[in-house]
Amino acid sequence: MKLTTVKEIYREREKYLDQEITVGGWVRSVRDSKTFGFVVLHDGTYFETLQVVYHDTMDNFAEISKLNVGAAIIVKGTLVATPQAKQPFEIQATEISVEGASAPDYPLQKKRHSLEYLRTITHLRSRTNTFQAVFRVRSLCAYAIHKFFQERGFVYVHTPLITGSDCEGAGEMFQVTTMDLNNIPTDEKGNIDYSKDFFGKETNLTVSGQLNCETFAQAFRNVYTFGPTFRAENSNTTRHAAEFWMIEPECAFADLEDNMNLAESMLKYVIRYVLENAPEEMNFFNSFVDKGLLDRLNHVANSEFGRVTYTEAIKLLEKNNDKFDYKVSWGCDLQTEHERYLTEQIFKKPIFVTDYPKEIKAFYMKMNEDGKTVAAMDCLVPGIGEIIGGSQREDDYGKLKARMDELGLKEEDYDFYLDLRKYGSTRHSGYGLGFERCVMYLTGMGNIRDVIPFPRTVNNCDL
Amino acid sequence: MKLTTVKEIYREREKYLDQEITVGGWVRSVRDSKTFGFVVLHDGTYFETLQVVYHDTMDNFAEISKLNVGAAIIVKGTLVATPQAKQPFEIQATEISVEGASAPDYPLQKKRHSLEYLRTITHLRSRTNTFQAVFRVRSLCAYAIHKFFQERGFVYVHTPLITGSDCEGAGEMFQVTTMDLNNIPTDEKGNIDYSKDFFGKETNLTVSGQLNCETFAQAFRNVYTFGPTFRAENSNTTRHAAEFWMIEPECAFADLEDNMNLAESMLKYVIRYVLENAPEEMNFFNSFVDKGLLDRLNHVANSEFGRVTYTEAIKLLEKNNDKFDYKVSWGCDLQTEHERYLTEQIFKKPIFVTDYPKEIKAFYMKMNEDGKTVAAMDCLVPGIGEIIGGSQREDDYGKLKARMDELGLKEEDYDFYLDLRKYGSTRHSGYGLGFERCVMYLTGMGNIRDVIPFPRTVNNCDL
Repeated sequence: MKLTTVKEIYREREKYLDQEITVGGWVRSVRDSKTFGFVVLHDGTYFETLQVVYHDTMDNFAEISKLNVGAAIIVKGTLVATPQAKQPFEIQATEISVEGASAPDYPLQKKRHSLEYLRTITHLRSRTNTFQAVFRVRSLCAYAIHKFFQERGFVYVHTPLITGSDCEGAGEMFQVTTMDLNNIPTDEKGNIDYSKDFFGKETNLTVSGQLNCETFAQAFRNVYTFGPTFRAENSNTTRHAAEFWMIEPECAFADLEDNMNLAESMLKYVIRYVLENAPEEMNFFNSFVDKGLLDRLNHVANSEFGRVTYTEAIKLLEKNNDKFDYKVSWGCDLQTEHERYLTEQIFKKPIFVTDYPKEIKAFYMKMNEDGKTVAAMDCLVPGIGEIIGGSQREDDYGKLKARMDELGLKEEDYDFYLDLRKYGSTRHSGYGLGFERCVMYLTGMGNIRDVIPFPRTVNNCDL
Repeated sequence: MKLTTVKEIYREREKYLDQEITVGGWVRSVRDSKTFGFVVLHDGTYFETLQVVYHDTMDNFAEISKLNVGAAIIVKGTLVATPQAKQPFEIQATEISVEGASAPDYPLQKKRHSLEYLRTITHLRSRTNTFQAVFRVRSLCAYAIHKFFQERGFVYVHTPLITGSDCEGAGEMFQVTTMDLNNIPTDEKGNIDYSKDFFGKETNLTVSGQLNCETFAQAFRNVYTFGPTFRAENSNTTRHAAEFWMIEPECAFADLEDNMNLAESMLKYVIRYVLENAPEEMNFFNSFVDKGLLDRLNHVANSEFGRVTYTEAIKLLEKNNDKFDYKVSWGCDLQTEHERYLTEQIFKKPIFVTDYPKEIKAFYMKMNEDGKTVAAMDCLVPGIGEIIGGSQREDDYGKLKARMDELGLKEEDYDFYLDLRKYGSTRHSGYGLGFERCVMYLTGMGNIRDVIPFPRTVNNCDL
């Protein structure tokens, strides 16, 4: 059915003023006096609402006046300017039909509900202002990321979700199986017989698409993956989810410098895209969720990101060790408190920290000349700390193999990965951006459960 | 590092002719005479290759001449027009450095390899012409789908992968668990104690995001999900994979007619986008994979799709029952042979078949007035048969509940879904498009394993 959207009305008002239009949406509130009434209508296409005026000349005046919050209606009428009123225009309705009523026990009322309460009704919470804003920004942010990479000729690779290998030993994994757990097949020694499982071997849900991405970068030069990843960590924090989305670009003929430039451009592009395409939502967050949000994002979009080596960063932090719960010294991993101190207090802008000790980074990172550090980079932003982690990859067969041996990684699990260093190896780099962390950063929302449509966390898998 | 891409050279040749440029890529072939030689270079950004001419004035002339297929090199030189030659230009190299050699046992040689062989080297096959074309088209196709929906204001919803419910009982599922399979916790009755599993209950990988999508459509009006879905079916065919991607839009205030219009626009948009943005790849498919491909796609992009009810379609097919392995009659499900006959022989263009018997369709489809059929639609296209399946959804609480009871579905598993019919229900519709089937259709590739970067099928989960 042809309905004019509230977005069209706000964005192209001249086209619709004094015209007869039909709109459909959900009732946010109704108030009536004896002869006329007002409905505040939200149609889901736009953050703002539309006021509908109706009169007792309508046959169903009483029915409309009794509508509960949440009811779906279709309104026919004329859009008129209301220069004296708070809202710029309203619809003078000639006809309102009820598409679907809303039962009296509707769990969303006109008052403000707590985020905790709303988490108990994930199927309805996206009808509230906060979640309208969050999930529209999430959608725009996802698209901005695709747009950024596609405009630069990157090939989007769907890396697999079910995997037979544990990429970097990056945390606990979920097992995937079709075996009957009441009757698990075993071999003659009593061990589980995975040859009877669906894939003929033990399989898990992926923790990263990076290694797969590297195989594609060595064919297409610039590629990215953007898909779900999983961690079976038993951590009940505001920043951990068992299922989340990740963006991982990978570029051949690219060193650490190229990698940082790409990450910086991408972050700025995404921030600008969202500010431009969701101004109402972003103003809402800035007013009601996180007062400094717009200033912070504009600052990031317009700063040249700083660069500092891990070794220099440690020196800077050591001078302030009295301020930290965990004292730093060369060799230790940076905690969020250190990351935030660096970016917020010392540099006062986003920074890349580079060249970390090899011991605290993954096996595939390129060894620096010093033999102690690797060509890693973490991007730290004010308000959150680390938002991106990446590295140049070890492209030398011998060095990679030696590092794998050192760490006891089995060659047969990584033969495809070693092959990339055997046949036309190139210097290459990539990084990972946790998508939810990015959305939290853009919206100021403090709990990862509130930026995922249907969050999965320990003991929670609703719908 | 700043490298000019082969794509830039082909697309903006005037800008680069007679200029000194640097390119990086992989060797497709080398041939040399005593004083000079030719390298055919592919850089992954473009389907075509670039010819490099090098001379014995170079110090490493001998090294270059001995390079194996697959080696990575960086070439500095001048781009010159070659009006007499097959290729439009070449690089006269002044410097070639070897970024990474290619070992003599490189599994890809200059000859044509079979698709079966290439499936055994998924980490390398994307370096061949066929897979360069397939995976670039796959990437463009994914982006075109996002672009189509985003331009129309649809909100992209990441529906969950791990789920506690079996949407529509749509096939066998993979179980997801963190329990130790050697020591599965049981309760006092000896049953598996899922309260000890990660989510505190039995969980699986999703087979469809539709029901989740519907909750968002009732908030945002127009939404879509585009993500991985899973089927643990033990079917070893050229059309089944255990892990594949699916696009599922869902629209509030939309009936079956709106749904078909959306599907038709989307298919045409995607075809046009790919034809426009990957002309070289599409010509390759048309020449080497599927001779009638371009004609077929252009025909679809420019046809008005036909519409026929299931009941009429059965009548048309019954007249031709002698041509079918499975004879049709009212009530039976359509097989691929029937679908193809309808779209290829009878209508000679894409068609929507609508209003199927309720018995062969899912519980959530809207019952028609006749009480026998539901407002379902399948889109059939020449060359493949069904490519899209969708329906208007039952939006009436009472009718939905009655149908669920009839089929023995448990109310507690679907209370969120029933809520949508209780609080502001709207007529609404949606459909599902299997992404891999779409890519097969666009490329003419005949095996689903060849359009998925790392396919997962029975007994196959490499990398």
